[in-house]
Amino acid sequence: MDAAALRAEFPVLERIAYLNAGTDGPVPARAVAAAHAELEREAAEGRRTPHFERRGELKDALRAAYAARLGADLADVALTTSTSEGIGLALAGLDLSPGDEIVTSDEEHPGLLGPLQAARDLRGVRITVVPFAELPGAVSPATRLVACSHVSWVGGAVAPAALAQLDVPVVLDGAQGAGAIPVDVGALGCDLYAAAGQKWLCGPDGTGMLWVSPAIRERVGAVLRSYTSYEDAGTGLEAPLHADARRYDTSALSAEACAFAVASHDVLAGFGWDAVYERARTLASRLADELRGRGEDVAPRGETTLVSWRSDDPVTVCDRLSQAGVAVRHLPGRDLVRASVGAWNDETDLDRLLAAL
Amino acid sequence: MDAAALRAEFPVLERIAYLNAGTDGPVPARAVAAAHAELEREAAEGRRTPHFERRGELKDALRAAYAARLGADLADVALTTSTSEGIGLALAGLDLSPGDEIVTSDEEHPGLLGPLQAARDLRGVRITVVPFAELPGAVSPATRLVACSHVSWVGGAVAPAALAQLDVPVVLDGAQGAGAIPVDVGALGCDLYAAAGQKWLCGPDGTGMLWVSPAIRERVGAVLRSYTSYEDAGTGLEAPLHADARRYDTSALSAEACAFAVASHDVLAGFGWDAVYERARTLASRLADELRGRGEDVAPRGETTLVSWRSDDPVTVCDRLSQAGVAVRHLPGRDLVRASVGAWNDETDLDRLLAAL
Repeated sequence: MDAAALRAEFPVLERIAYLNAGTDGPVPARAVAAAHAELEREAAEGRRTPHFERRGELKDALRAAYAARLGADLADVALTTSTSEGIGLALAGLDLSPGDEIVTSDEEHPGLLGPLQAARDLRGVRITVVPFAELPGAVSPATRLVACSHVSWVGGAVAPAALAQLDVPVVLDGAQGAGAIPVDVGALGCDLYAAAGQKWLCGPDGTGMLWVSPAIRERVGAVLRSYTSYEDAGTGLEAPLHADARRYDTSALSAEACAFAVASHDVLAGFGWDAVYERARTLASRLADELRGRGEDVAPRGETTLVSWRSDDPVTVCDRLSQAGVAVRHLPGRDLVRASVGAWNDETDLDRLLAAL
Repeated sequence: MDAAALRAEFPVLERIAYLNAGTDGPVPARAVAAAHAELEREAAEGRRTPHFERRGELKDALRAAYAARLGADLADVALTTSTSEGIGLALAGLDLSPGDEIVTSDEEHPGLLGPLQAARDLRGVRITVVPFAELPGAVSPATRLVACSHVSWVGGAVAPAALAQLDVPVVLDGAQGAGAIPVDVGALGCDLYAAAGQKWLCGPDGTGMLWVSPAIRERVGAVLRSYTSYEDAGTGLEAPLHADARRYDTSALSAEACAFAVASHDVLAGFGWDAVYERARTLASRLADELRGRGEDVAPRGETTLVSWRSDDPVTVCDRLSQAGVAVRHLPGRDLVRASVGAWNDETDLDRLLAAL
């Protein structure tokens, strides 16, 4: 891969060692141009039939991009506004009753904890929290669902492979998976996989995806319905929902958001996804090794793109790094600093971080 | 009002008699510039803490704009991605049981019918459909909710004033209300009011609002929860939701979408909302009168911005008008052509429509 050419796509890298894609990815200049072109078109031509046709084409292109990143069929991927929304729609749509148990881990993000809290508060579901590595063994006869990260946002560990063998449905929070590492939802053995557009895929805030396995689709009600949930909404209350996952689509993804997301995806795709994944993984491993070599306490991680290490004062560390032009984050309540390493990074970014630590 | 100056804000009006705000409003050049500036900033600076602070400020500004258009307190307005989503969240959050009745009208949009269908299919609620003008009299002891348009998307009629006297909660679909006519949610006597950002407020696709009266807030569960639902999401499953309507906010409205929406709102606000409402109303009434004078069968309407008239072949009429540079729409299954008249229109737009009919 021509790493310099990839870096040159991202203006922020001219100034900053940007290691924050686990929050929001860097934005390629081409994505800004693509979104701007849609905005100019809307202003000049208005938003009538040709606009809705254009939006439809962009949505199709975005769904195809997301499906490819998940190793999924197009028909099983819904467009959402965030990972959180995808998880929320999945949980709210499942037929859960008071006393049913959902097993989750102690390394989950508010984007998963929020939907779990809603299931508990509004539907009387019991939530059992266990260490991330112990999830498979925590499943009991009362368990109706396992809901956890694919890749932990805390330290970058990967969900236990034994989850694929469980008899209960598994919902994976793929916010740190899709676009960061190769994902094959079939091989993961999960039933639902929610992920983000704005992180490792460098798309706009307000984009994401929900994969719903065909086997579970009829058990996941479409909780929010709108014009776009139907093949033909004109038949009113009796309109049949889309047969496929489009029934779960968010109601109004803008053309500019779709164009931004597709352009960002295509920038990365142009360098080859295998190369993108491999380069990010290699750089992240190098960073973890260097940190360990300096005596830092690096959190257990898989072959992923997140590198977290302990700090007694992570806020001050992040401020100092920020002043040195290094963008990382701290994890509230966990005494950790986290670097997100992408294929757009290079060794100068890592050296800058290490020098400023 | 300087009507020519207002028109000059909207590039589409240079070429097209744009009478389609009931679907999507015209886009001001200043809104494109505002969104583009955010996109350029994100690409240049990355999306880290200052970005999230900026997004927060833009969300605050947008919420204030929406609250002003609804005559509502800031604390009672949630940011959504569409009218449909607002209605969907409201209905899904209400404690409804099998056999409960929701009364609605025969003039509702799929954005309301979809959420009603979900309530029926997923929760066993009974839906009773009556003529729009007969809604208040249709309420029975089994009725738990009335859900209907504030302004009918079909012909522009206004919901019966007697709805304000009912003992059951009322959800209004304000897609053709907010920004089109003066709205005072308190005076309307409703409990929930959902509306759109992209129609009469000329914002981007993917914006909207949900007003939740303080009296009903504790009865409307927050079905979708994410990082932004909480004052401090860091406390996990025990985090308290925002005390106010931010608990219902969509999880990830982008800075560029907010900037677009705020700029569009501010363009209109700069000409004075009283003048904006009055000019749209006057032009719409003139169009209705002219159509009637030509023998057209104009649908019953209130003092609103929608003008619909019967046609045996509305698709052909819309195509002919489109070829003449006039943007209107037809209403599937209803044999109606609908013009949406805004303050940005002028008599030349109306004359062009009338000449091409």
